[in-house]
Amino acid sequence: MTSLTLALDAMGGDFGPHVTVPAALQALSHFPHLNLILVGDRIAIGEQLRSHNATESPRLQLLHAEQVVSMSERPAQALRTRRQSSMRLALDLVRDGQADACVSAGNTGALMAMSKVVLRTLPGIDRPALVARVPTVIGKPVYLLDLGANVVCDSDTLFQFAVMGSVLAECSDQRGAPKVALLNVGTEQVKGNDQVQQAAQLLQQTPQLNYAGFIEGDAIFKGDVDVIVCDGFVGNVTLKTTEGAARLLLQQVHDAIQGNLLAKLLGWLLKKRLKQLNQHMNPDQYNGASLLGLRGIVVKSHGNVDKTAFFHAIEQAVAEVEQQVPLQIKDRLESVLLEKS
Amino acid sequence: MTSLTLALDAMGGDFGPHVTVPAALQALSHFPHLNLILVGDRIAIGEQLRSHNATESPRLQLLHAEQVVSMSERPAQALRTRRQSSMRLALDLVRDGQADACVSAGNTGALMAMSKVVLRTLPGIDRPALVARVPTVIGKPVYLLDLGANVVCDSDTLFQFAVMGSVLAECSDQRGAPKVALLNVGTEQVKGNDQVQQAAQLLQQTPQLNYAGFIEGDAIFKGDVDVIVCDGFVGNVTLKTTEGAARLLLQQVHDAIQGNLLAKLLGWLLKKRLKQLNQHMNPDQYNGASLLGLRGIVVKSHGNVDKTAFFHAIEQAVAEVEQQVPLQIKDRLESVLLEKS
Repeated sequence: MTSLTLALDAMGGDFGPHVTVPAALQALSHFPHLNLILVGDRIAIGEQLRSHNATESPRLQLLHAEQVVSMSERPAQALRTRRQSSMRLALDLVRDGQADACVSAGNTGALMAMSKVVLRTLPGIDRPALVARVPTVIGKPVYLLDLGANVVCDSDTLFQFAVMGSVLAECSDQRGAPKVALLNVGTEQVKGNDQVQQAAQLLQQTPQLNYAGFIEGDAIFKGDVDVIVCDGFVGNVTLKTTEGAARLLLQQVHDAIQGNLLAKLLGWLLKKRLKQLNQHMNPDQYNGASLLGLRGIVVKSHGNVDKTAFFHAIEQAVAEVEQQVPLQIKDRLESVLLEKS
Repeated sequence: MTSLTLALDAMGGDFGPHVTVPAALQALSHFPHLNLILVGDRIAIGEQLRSHNATESPRLQLLHAEQVVSMSERPAQALRTRRQSSMRLALDLVRDGQADACVSAGNTGALMAMSKVVLRTLPGIDRPALVARVPTVIGKPVYLLDLGANVVCDSDTLFQFAVMGSVLAECSDQRGAPKVALLNVGTEQVKGNDQVQQAAQLLQQTPQLNYAGFIEGDAIFKGDVDVIVCDGFVGNVTLKTTEGAARLLLQQVHDAIQGNLLAKLLGWLLKKRLKQLNQHMNPDQYNGASLLGLRGIVVKSHGNVDKTAFFHAIEQAVAEVEQQVPLQIKDRLESVLLEKS
């Protein structure tokens, strides 16, 4: 397997190097062909490396960054004033070909804005979208986009998201003619706001896409479709709501089982099943959303995650590099958008 | 206890009288002080009554309606052409004082449009909102609005929803100074779209409300706040997503228990515990959303529900009549809005 290099924004997320450094070390031992560049404050990263008995090596390099983008910073301000931040320098490494992808748990808006400026969008794409896989009943995850990169979207943007999502499902999972749906408040044709209504019309006029109509929130997990498109406000709230509901329910099951001796015995008998359930539904397993539509690979981790979840985001970036996702999207996009125009 | 009368749109929902009639009979035996008027097709309702060995009585009257509002009908069209529908006649009964509240599982948009015209909104309220209780970790449900009555909302509308939700939480649950939050893509002040940003400013300037800032999707279930406000598109998708996720997880637990003989036996022994879990989290238990901001009580049941869930919607209407919710909202609204203007 050819080696690949990822640039990690080591300062991003709620816990910075406390999470990113141990996750990086886990990834290095998991993927023998992986090299990492940790970008961030030399001292903070160095401390974490020492506390895990690790040192810099040809596979684990350190790039010092003077600045950090805070979680509450406005994207435009971060873009203007954080040119020496760990996030920015990690993206610069991708632009300059020194890294194959960037992983960050930092400020989503800033990551989106910087990625757009540093890496630029693919031809035909106005705005990148944040996409993630969401678990379904039938095991096969569904791609949901946008997850918050664009809180306001017109119908053209929703249409572009549909094209990108379809291509991603096709090239990442070898799904033939992925079914693409628009998230809406009802399945009837008359439902929804203007953007969704007009995006539906655009999709109906695009034979290269397998448009499956509107879908409601409760159908997200049924696995009937492969890609679900919505604006970033709706998508962000939907994804976080799902995660909140899943965590609440898993907790309730756990509490019910801990409640008495018999139940504990039941829990023990079902240990494997419940572990599977947890793995199947635990949001941490699905950490790692991709910024789609860029000329490079950027994976966004949740900010508030542990080492394991950040490891999954790194894993996601490795997969996308190996599948050459942006190149495949570019090729398919050209055929869909050019035939259309 | 003084008697009260509800008008049921017996034809509404996916199953019409097959669900509404048995639920009505269950409600009559559960609430000795309750009278019901079943509004809809005389023959279809009569058949259901006979099949349950029930007949018309002083407590169970039947009002024939020639028309039905279909689930896919456009609200404006329903308003114009369905004046003899079961939904419309049930609302007319409330307007004319012959019923204290109306319950319908029919077309949400049509119910909203008709309610607004027939019952009118309270002074200071432009548009009614659909509100429901959502379960939280701490047992105390949170009020979420709007759930789909208004797919596009400006900041004034969101502000009015916040006032109404706060009053509802206060008068239904005796919660003092309910905490009101805006659902958003982040908790930082800079996050969100224009409507949410401007609504936040309005709420910050209203000392009569206990405004708690922005809340993200995963915090809905934490029970930190009492009322969560969003536009109807976001709220509808959020509620349905929650329900979908809850059903999926409960099914997974059920499947895990059925998969193993010993587990099945223990599951049987723990039936009560698992039933509690189901009751706590099953969306059917929370069926019955209220149209808030009207001069009368209208409860909307989900369309695709069984007898038990529709019974819970009737139960919800009974509670609102007893608490005189619209009157209380009117009083509190006047104090908040008048002091504000």
